[in-house]
Amino acid sequence: MVNLCSDNAGGAAPEILAALEAAGRGWAMPYGNDDLTRRVEARLQEIFEAKAAVFPVATGTAANGLCLSLMTPPYGAIFCHEHAHIHEDECGAPEFYTGGAKLVTLGGAHGKLAAADLGAAIEAAGAGVVHHVQPAAVSLSNASEAGTVYTPDELGAIAEVTRAHGLGLHVDGARFANALVSLGCSPAELTWKAGVEALSFGATKNGALAAEAVILFKPALAANLPFRRKRGGHLLSKMRFLSAQLDAYLTDDLWLRNARHANAMARRLAEGLAQFPGVRLSHPVEANEIFARLPEAMIQGLTERGVHFYRWGPKENSQVRLIASFDTRAEEVDRVLAAARELSGAGGDTRQSA
Amino acid sequence: MVNLCSDNAGGAAPEILAALEAAGRGWAMPYGNDDLTRRVEARLQEIFEAKAAVFPVATGTAANGLCLSLMTPPYGAIFCHEHAHIHEDECGAPEFYTGGAKLVTLGGAHGKLAAADLGAAIEAAGAGVVHHVQPAAVSLSNASEAGTVYTPDELGAIAEVTRAHGLGLHVDGARFANALVSLGCSPAELTWKAGVEALSFGATKNGALAAEAVILFKPALAANLPFRRKRGGHLLSKMRFLSAQLDAYLTDDLWLRNARHANAMARRLAEGLAQFPGVRLSHPVEANEIFARLPEAMIQGLTERGVHFYRWGPKENSQVRLIASFDTRAEEVDRVLAAARELSGAGGDTRQSA
Amino acid sequence: MVNLCSDNAGGAAPEILAALEAAGRGWAMPYGNDDLTRRVEARLQEIFEAKAAVFPVATGTAANGLCLSLMTPPYGAIFCHEHAHIHEDECGAPEFYTGGAKLVTLGGAHGKLAAADLGAAIEAAGAGVVHHVQPAAVSLSNASEAGTVYTPDELGAIAEVTRAHGLGLHVDGARFANALVSLGCSPAELTWKAGVEALSFGATKNGALAAEAVILFKPALAANLPFRRKRGGHLLSKMRFLSAQLDAYLTDDLWLRNARHANAMARRLAEGLAQFPGVRLSHPVEANEIFARLPEAMIQGLTERGVHFYRWGPKENSQVRLIASFDTRAEEVDRVLAAARELSGAGGDTRQSA
Amino acid sequence: MVNLCSDNAGGAAPEILAALEAAGRGWAMPYGNDDLTRRVEARLQEIFEAKAAVFPVATGTAANGLCLSLMTPPYGAIFCHEHAHIHEDECGAPEFYTGGAKLVTLGGAHGKLAAADLGAAIEAAGAGVVHHVQPAAVSLSNASEAGTVYTPDELGAIAEVTRAHGLGLHVDGARFANALVSLGCSPAELTWKAGVEALSFGATKNGALAAEAVILFKPALAANLPFRRKRGGHLLSKMRFLSAQLDAYLTDDLWLRNARHANAMARRLAEGLAQFPGVRLSHPVEANEIFARLPEAMIQGLTERGVHFYRWGPKENSQVRLIASFDTRAEEVDRVLAAARELSGAGGDTRQSA
Repeated sequence: MVNLCSDNAGGAAPEILAALEAAGRGWAMPYGNDDLTRRVEARLQEIFEAKAAVFPVATGTAANGLCLSLMTPPYGAIFCHEHAHIHEDECGAPEFYTGGAKLVTLGGAHGKLAAADLGAAIEAAGAGVVHHVQPAAVSLSNASEAGTVYTPDELGAIAEVTRAHGLGLHVDGARFANALVSLGCSPAELTWKAGVEALSFGATKNGALAAEAVILFKPALAANLPFRRKRGGHLLSKMRFLSAQLDAYLTDDLWLRNARHANAMARRLAEGLAQFPGVRLSHPVEANEIFARLPEAMIQGLTERGVHFYRWGPKENSQVRLIASFDTRAEEVDRVLAAARELSGAGGDTRQSA
Repeated sequence: MVNLCSDNAGGAAPEILAALEAAGRGWAMPYGNDDLTRRVEARLQEIFEAKAAVFPVATGTAANGLCLSLMTPPYGAIFCHEHAHIHEDECGAPEFYTGGAKLVTLGGAHGKLAAADLGAAIEAAGAGVVHHVQPAAVSLSNASEAGTVYTPDELGAIAEVTRAHGLGLHVDGARFANALVSLGCSPAELTWKAGVEALSFGATKNGALAAEAVILFKPALAANLPFRRKRGGHLLSKMRFLSAQLDAYLTDDLWLRNARHANAMARRLAEGLAQFPGVRLSHPVEANEIFARLPEAMIQGLTERGVHFYRWGPKENSQVRLIASFDTRAEEVDRVLAAARELSGAGGDTRQSA
Repeated sequence: MVNLCSDNAGGAAPEILAALEAAGRGWAMPYGNDDLTRRVEARLQEIFEAKAAVFPVATGTAANGLCLSLMTPPYGAIFCHEHAHIHEDECGAPEFYTGGAKLVTLGGAHGKLAAADLGAAIEAAGAGVVHHVQPAAVSLSNASEAGTVYTPDELGAIAEVTRAHGLGLHVDGARFANALVSLGCSPAELTWKAGVEALSFGATKNGALAAEAVILFKPALAANLPFRRKRGGHLLSKMRFLSAQLDAYLTDDLWLRNARHANAMARRLAEGLAQFPGVRLSHPVEANEIFARLPEAMIQGLTERGVHFYRWGPKENSQVRLIASFDTRAEEVDRVLAAARELSGAGGDTRQSA
Repeated sequence: MVNLCSDNAGGAAPEILAALEAAGRGWAMPYGNDDLTRRVEARLQEIFEAKAAVFPVATGTAANGLCLSLMTPPYGAIFCHEHAHIHEDECGAPEFYTGGAKLVTLGGAHGKLAAADLGAAIEAAGAGVVHHVQPAAVSLSNASEAGTVYTPDELGAIAEVTRAHGLGLHVDGARFANALVSLGCSPAELTWKAGVEALSFGATKNGALAAEAVILFKPALAANLPFRRKRGGHLLSKMRFLSAQLDAYLTDDLWLRNARHANAMARRLAEGLAQFPGVRLSHPVEANEIFARLPEAMIQGLTERGVHFYRWGPKENSQVRLIASFDTRAEEVDRVLAAARELSGAGGDTRQSA
């Protein structure tokens, strides 16, 4: 059995489990008044080269909702991609945390917002007109929900738009590490240097058990986050067990090593599959996610052989999503490719012969 | 250094750390579609002798807010003790999760609501009158915030009131295990058999890292909890790591053993302190919390010797809160008592000589 | 000066002003416990041939928000047209009143939802999947924001979809009277007989000062409306002055007469304009609103001559919205047409020559 | 029949009805872009000697909720009297408009907050501590719910407390005119000169049909009110009909004349009643409300003779509330007194003879 369903289905990195074990001994002050939490803050400030405010939480949905709650009044509009996780997959958490703000969605090739479209949408939104929700923030995912990445330049172009209109800029970084190593730039270049004000920094998908961090690069945002986090039930009493995960995650570049491995596995898989007839990649594979149309026989054959993944979109599209994780092994990828080759040779792809 | 600040400051039980280690290997479907989560549900149903719905979450504040959101409309009133955790210590989380319901507080000796007072308050609240928030639920803590426990009979009397007026009944069980072993009754007797409809079942304070469970005994409440949990950012993607904690917690009576130990340590400490002149217990010590007035010299002397605890109430009251945890050791208690004896003998309690 | 900006810009019907005068004498119990309010309820029940619950409020936005708050949980989805007033022109009031539900928009020719599109959207929305907001209600405007009307059959087809999926069906009837007289059917046929569960019944745009009514055809919806109305600040203390407006509005068919007149004026204007070269109606004119593309010279010339109206959409489209009101006079319409004829003859429409 | 139930039960002042009639002719731009609304703003600025921002709304509950929404984050605490209208009689509207802030109640003689108590409560509330809702605003009613008034000095003392702690200060002025004429000071002295930042300026109870105004003396508060008002459904489309009421209310001192009359009638009634055995005034009668304990036989006898009023508190207290209105006539008061005298002479007050 091979798991390509989600990096959420992966296990926990041994280094992180060991850190929990160590943190479990003795006692510490609760609610983040502990050394581990302070260390994580210092580490992230160093890594991001910024005096950023850091708030660990257990889920990405919480991180996103909290970040957005700092950027918009209840009558605000948050601009995002039509396939953004905050819009499609959080059961309305942004609306909950913001007190009912409206998510305004835009299209965009390969899961990414284009700065020009964004500017046009904001201008059409009616800032200052009392009948309309008021443009307040832009939220994008990097890596995106299509497995692509925004470059620092692309982010900078978007930030120019948000700055020009006085909007906040949030990045959902559930797969931030995957985007970062894909680009080879620095964490600072991919965030505040490009104009990002708030980041949901993910660790769960990349080897932690349940650990994310809200990182606020704009100091003015930080003042009321502690109260909103507590009010949302996201201030862990034994915070050190969350911080211990992040601490191990950031130690000895574990986060970067894990992400590089996952990206490499995705690339190996994508390149392998792309050689088979009838396979078409839906988007460039720039991180650890693959979206592809496969011959229907291949989809079914892989499933029968214990490869787990999701179909994506209507069944007649024969599109699938394949995600590699920090613990996906090269031999697993190769086994999948071998099976795919066999299924490909067996023919049965009616579209191909068409 | 001895920690008597809070059971939140305690470490993690080795059995629970081991369970995380085991759960960290291999992969599993995310969001609770895994065997461990199913096993926890089955275990809790067995323990509570009920077909209850079970929803693990990471914090007690989340568990409480979610439970209450099921029981009240936004224009509802939730009756609770004036020192209830939900009222004083959750930064308005119940208001957040309920969409703005009002907490109506009552007094009550030793941190407990009295059924008669509750009935009177509900009757005075103006059910059906459009100008008033509408009585919707009662929430109490067992063990209470004063370290006392409600007996099944006391709960039954309160449930009679809530039933008579059509209100929901929620128990904040952050220290449910401590209450249970203190009373020696069954989990069912302390919950649904007495009329409790929803329980925030705590594990964090009693040896877990971050694990609680919403347990709903009234099936009608369960239908929309999944959406509210997700929307609040409390559906963990790698849920199995939360469930693994609960699973170990419930295995071989770890939860009961831990609670018995903590209660015994609190009793040992309370009985020891009570013998010293100038010490007065504020409430009966029925679980693992002690509230006591100590000679001012004793408070300061213990602090200087590395005993950590909180003052409680205005400084001139010389009242403190001392909490024993699953990992408080008898020798630690004895060391505190020895120090207290010495500080007591040294005199200096001005109130005593007055 | 001729007002074609909005029926909101119109005056008050003399009959309604007289009713206020009469209601102003003497006293009456507040908050709707008065004879006038009871009479309005009885009248509306008679007119709609239904034991409907009636709740007067001062604005259409309040009526819409309150209706929707009865039909959706905070994690619900409300399906509506992309140009729905509730989505575009209420500054997020539906989100506010529902505690953060999400408005999911659909296209649709001439401002109307098509039953088939709606069914497909609901099916794609992921009912029961915890990550997605849950389909809860459909809201449409009749007359629509494009000045068209839904027939009873069209409503019935939509209601079949909502019933099949267990969704509520709300109609924003800010211009309900205009739709009704346009179709010539009965109020019952245009609402509950077709499957409508809740109606925002408008009077303000059609001769009242500030008077609308929430009408609930599904009894189960009515129980918590009173509390939500009060909580929103929409329970008027001197309610009789709101009810007096509605009472006069419903007396001697004033509401139908006013609507017939407004519709006739719109038709007269539309038919007149359509004869001029370069004029194209954007939608069928079925109520009292006209959307049309005019020669740019005509737009500017009319404006210079004191005809007030709004451009609609981007300026380069040369589209305008013209609304006739209960107090628009035929001579005003004719004056506008005369001016338009003159401006038309003067040429200058570049598109026309193209 | 004499109405002493409430000033809400009173009629409408003829001057105000005449103003509506006049406003009903012709048309005007909607949503407050009209001359009458501008005139009301200018008049209020002149009357209050301040460049205040003015926002008419239809109800006092809306005015209060909107004012408070400007002063507190969702995790804020609003301090008010335990019998404040916002706490007891608005079905949770402040919680709704603030997104779930908590009302923290204090006692206080004769319905008024004492500055010292307030200071102590704020200091005890835990500003900056993440577990507690954060002190954000103080709201008081002038005249109070006990029919008493705060003097400028008393307000100043409270404002000193709010300023010292950085809290907002709101006044619920449903009976502001009654307080003002009772004190004989200027509107400015009773508001911003004493430190008040936001006022719910009432007109409905004093002769209007449904008209109040949010008046913001602190410019920073005004920026987001327009959006919150619209979002709450409280921006009337035909705003001029609301403004026309306020305009007439402020013309030729109608508001002050009406309030003086109502206060005089209340005083006449209170002084008359106080002479009868067994009658005790519960609070000083400083505006137009009387709270008094009457002999039980008097309560019943007056009721039988068609005098309408409410009992106040538990029946065994024999306490009533009597409110005089702008349209209460002296002869009505004298008729009530004559009946009371008769009922008093008839004896039957068991408490008195005890």
